[in-house]
Amino acid sequence: MSTPLLLGSLMEALRCLPGVGLKSAQRMAFHLLQRDRSGGMRLAQSLTQAMSNIGHCVSCRTFTEEKSCTVCVNPYRQKNGQICVVESPADVHAIEQTGQFSGRYFVLMGRLSPLDGIGPTDIGLDLLASRLASETFSEVILATNPTVEGDATARYIGGICQQYRVPASRIAHGVPVGGELEMVDGTTLSHSLIGRQRLIY
Amino acid sequence: MSTPLLLGSLMEALRCLPGVGLKSAQRMAFHLLQRDRSGGMRLAQSLTQAMSNIGHCVSCRTFTEEKSCTVCVNPYRQKNGQICVVESPADVHAIEQTGQFSGRYFVLMGRLSPLDGIGPTDIGLDLLASRLASETFSEVILATNPTVEGDATARYIGGICQQYRVPASRIAHGVPVGGELEMVDGTTLSHSLIGRQRLIY
Repeated sequence: MSTPLLLGSLMEALRCLPGVGLKSAQRMAFHLLQRDRSGGMRLAQSLTQAMSNIGHCVSCRTFTEEKSCTVCVNPYRQKNGQICVVESPADVHAIEQTGQFSGRYFVLMGRLSPLDGIGPTDIGLDLLASRLASETFSEVILATNPTVEGDATARYIGGICQQYRVPASRIAHGVPVGGELEMVDGTTLSHSLIGRQRLIY
Repeated sequence: MSTPLLLGSLMEALRCLPGVGLKSAQRMAFHLLQRDRSGGMRLAQSLTQAMSNIGHCVSCRTFTEEKSCTVCVNPYRQKNGQICVVESPADVHAIEQTGQFSGRYFVLMGRLSPLDGIGPTDIGLDLLASRLASETFSEVILATNPTVEGDATARYIGGICQQYRVPASRIAHGVPVGGELEMVDGTTLSHSLIGRQRLIY
């Protein structure tokens, strides 16, 4: 084979990206070399900076390059009193993009999973408990994923909230907006029936 | 929005990769930060090295970090006498992976396209002509893409070969192996009929 050493190792390195296999990696490497070397250099710099400088916020555990993230230091967000518990920083990103939530977040960086040895302290629930004890919150919104483990995690955190007398709520499960009823799976459909809301005129 | 500055610029930088849009870039950035920081650092290093050190082979114009590529300096390849003309280094990679060809290559790094102002010297045909004049080749295999421009380029190079009295051939066009006849377009099917080969027992 005639692949130059550096080209081969670039192809190999690109495969660490999710969803990138052998063929995509080849295509990416050749594209960058042939058409966008400056883009490749910029990407290398961004990667280096992000990988070495992005850490976790001391109060909510999301990604930030500072000590605290921009949401946690925002006084309007603090006044709001709501705190939304999510599994990952990507979920924070998704909720922020809806523009529907103006409280603070708490990022678990995972979910309870006893079989994998992931217990309450591994997902920072000691930190959450100490925040519930020291700060005043009007509501804890549990926005973990609608999976078996995500539901169990939400239920567990609900117990902690009850202990500190903070109202807790779970995000609604149901038919996705714009979806077709016949395409939706049975479990989701029964959730959407159980969680039905009265129309108010 | 609460995206940290470095995270935002990483997402933006990832979009220089072909086939990576906003959502994929987000997913890649979060994946690297959460699960594979060392992979991200390795990728950054590979990118920097590849972008700054990979150049073009002086005799065949393919990608290499040396003065000449491994194919051009290989004495067995030189003895073979065949030279395969392709549009891009990715084509060299594809042909090398078949294991069917043991001659040398010439990479055009493009194709003739008068409307875009790409003429013979832009795709290195002066270099190819001087090689045809100075070296001895048994055959020039024209493996440009089966497009209008690729065909025109092959025909043009065929003319140069005739000038230097070197036999030239064009790769076969036809039904892809494993494909179904009814799914193949008409032009390909007529090519496969015109280029039919007698069965020999």
